[in-house]
Amino acid sequence: MKDAVTFNLIKKDKKARRGVLSTPHGEVQTPVFMPVGTAGTVKAMRPEEVKALGAEIILSNTYHLYLRPGHEVIKEAGGLHKFMNWDRPILTDSGGFQVFSLGDLRKITNEGVEFRSHIDGSYHMFSPEKSMEVQNALGSDIMMAFDECAPYPCDMDHAERAAKRTTEWLMRCKEAHKNTGKQSLFGIMQGGVYPDLRKKSAEEIVAMDLPGYAVGGLSVGEPKELMCEVLDHCVDHLPENKPRYLMGVGTPDYLFEAVERGIDMCDCVLPTRIARNGTALTSGGQINIKNAKYERDFTPLDGKCDCYTCRNYTRAYLRHLYKSDEILSSMLLSNHNLYFLVNIMKNIRESIEEERFAEYKNEFYREYGYM
Amino acid sequence: MKDAVTFNLIKKDKKARRGVLSTPHGEVQTPVFMPVGTAGTVKAMRPEEVKALGAEIILSNTYHLYLRPGHEVIKEAGGLHKFMNWDRPILTDSGGFQVFSLGDLRKITNEGVEFRSHIDGSYHMFSPEKSMEVQNALGSDIMMAFDECAPYPCDMDHAERAAKRTTEWLMRCKEAHKNTGKQSLFGIMQGGVYPDLRKKSAEEIVAMDLPGYAVGGLSVGEPKELMCEVLDHCVDHLPENKPRYLMGVGTPDYLFEAVERGIDMCDCVLPTRIARNGTALTSGGQINIKNAKYERDFTPLDGKCDCYTCRNYTRAYLRHLYKSDEILSSMLLSNHNLYFLVNIMKNIRESIEEERFAEYKNEFYREYGYM
Repeated sequence: MKDAVTFNLIKKDKKARRGVLSTPHGEVQTPVFMPVGTAGTVKAMRPEEVKALGAEIILSNTYHLYLRPGHEVIKEAGGLHKFMNWDRPILTDSGGFQVFSLGDLRKITNEGVEFRSHIDGSYHMFSPEKSMEVQNALGSDIMMAFDECAPYPCDMDHAERAAKRTTEWLMRCKEAHKNTGKQSLFGIMQGGVYPDLRKKSAEEIVAMDLPGYAVGGLSVGEPKELMCEVLDHCVDHLPENKPRYLMGVGTPDYLFEAVERGIDMCDCVLPTRIARNGTALTSGGQINIKNAKYERDFTPLDGKCDCYTCRNYTRAYLRHLYKSDEILSSMLLSNHNLYFLVNIMKNIRESIEEERFAEYKNEFYREYGYM
Repeated sequence: MKDAVTFNLIKKDKKARRGVLSTPHGEVQTPVFMPVGTAGTVKAMRPEEVKALGAEIILSNTYHLYLRPGHEVIKEAGGLHKFMNWDRPILTDSGGFQVFSLGDLRKITNEGVEFRSHIDGSYHMFSPEKSMEVQNALGSDIMMAFDECAPYPCDMDHAERAAKRTTEWLMRCKEAHKNTGKQSLFGIMQGGVYPDLRKKSAEEIVAMDLPGYAVGGLSVGEPKELMCEVLDHCVDHLPENKPRYLMGVGTPDYLFEAVERGIDMCDCVLPTRIARNGTALTSGGQINIKNAKYERDFTPLDGKCDCYTCRNYTRAYLRHLYKSDEILSSMLLSNHNLYFLVNIMKNIRESIEEERFAEYKNEFYREYGYM
């Protein structure tokens, strides 16, 4: 059967790639930044606003939706798209990363992961089969494999065991996935910071001929230089004609570093999370709006930005909203921060088309203050 | 000088009135419900969304804006309309009601009210002159007089003193108001539940020939029947050709009772406040969305409502958002509740035009469960 999701690579600028992802809910121009809607909502945003700022695909979290409201409720509602009023593509993670993050609340076996809910302490079991069942119920366009994400730092034995289990679990995911024509399963590479393990993991998952591959286990605490070095190895072993997704990456510099190394997709909660703390990404670097110096600053958050927030509100007003605990503060800053990252990717796509990605990256870094 | 705000009475159905309020920021069809934007934002709503649900005028609070961000900041920003990105009419209260509500934190003299900020405990003084200065800085279309709102219950002597002071303060407000051509000052009637005092208060303020009059000191805890009875007396002494504003009224039944007695304008924080607690106003009465029975209820909040929320989301989804503490819950429920009250007033206006206000009221009450 033809995969639900296909990828068309249309242009390269060195390793940086310009492509199009086709899904049952429409096309996605890559490289792409995917806003995260953890619990079936991109926090503090109406779906139309997420669309209006240019997002073509969002990510939602299997672990959270499984616990609340429950995947059966969402299935009865007609799937996640309908439930949350989002008619563009959705990628769901596998729940693996969240249950591994539970620490003492979870136990790993070859079968899967037993864990206790962070909401009410109830016992649950996630396995490759269960993750597929839940993601099939959600009806996302792209489903992620249930993998074991090793922590950083992590010794080679541990990283090897995790990568081996990830491959075994991927086979079980592929077998358990019941909705191939309408949803596509992406495999995830593991292997920690060890080039040989990454190569082996890549070869094993690529042999399964999936419609897309993710690089997992990076951006989990390791230094940026090491992330970049490992990422170079990872991408070398992935096929040209399939999309490549670097999971959980979202600061502006990481987007550039990822694209430069041949990554097509990224996601992160960062833009909406820091927005709720009053932090804005701007072309001149991060600012915190609660700072007293913005009390009578009647300029926009970012003078070079043309998002809804920057077109209509001043720093003085945004500071006032934040200081007054007004919900509109989170709404307007989330809108701006998401636009900022989505728009970086739009500019990156243009720069690749015009073979000037490196120049654009330098220009951005200089202004943002990365160098 | 011509008043900034004028009123045109276009139709009556018994005492109920259909009119148009003209202001420097556009026309307002009356009777009207005014959403409240306490701190320069209608909570959890973008201004465009407030417009889209049909609101033609909003209310904002002088006390809150004076304390934070400070009226001087808003003046520097170019006034409240520009500061908060709302280009339709704004009515500001005088700050009187809030400072009187401070209890032990305030002291009343003929000069005005000394009070301590609820935010940082700092000392401040509000007087008729100060209230006008602040409201002139904010640049609202309609400014309210600085009055003494007597509590309920309240003996006749106390109510008489408060009404007398309110008249004296109104004279000082009129004298202090510096922006007559662009902002209009409305007087406020006091007198508690005592018909003779209400009559005297009305005669005194009407003698000042202001562009509009408010009924203050009602809906402050007295039974509904008493409110209706006193309101009848109040309205009898107000001129036909000026708009009449009943302050702080916002449950559906109070809107009907007010309009039935000849009131043109109402406001209340109720719709947005209860929205944040998960409560929705529906044609079948109030419901609380956190109720377990809505877990798999895939119908809209109100099957007879055509607001954005009801067109796009189910009770099951709204319950999920509320249970997950998602900001979108407050956004969607606020939108629905505001639409519900704004739309009642729209239907009331049509019913007055067609001389069937009483029928519409009966129909609404029956379905809502008031009778």
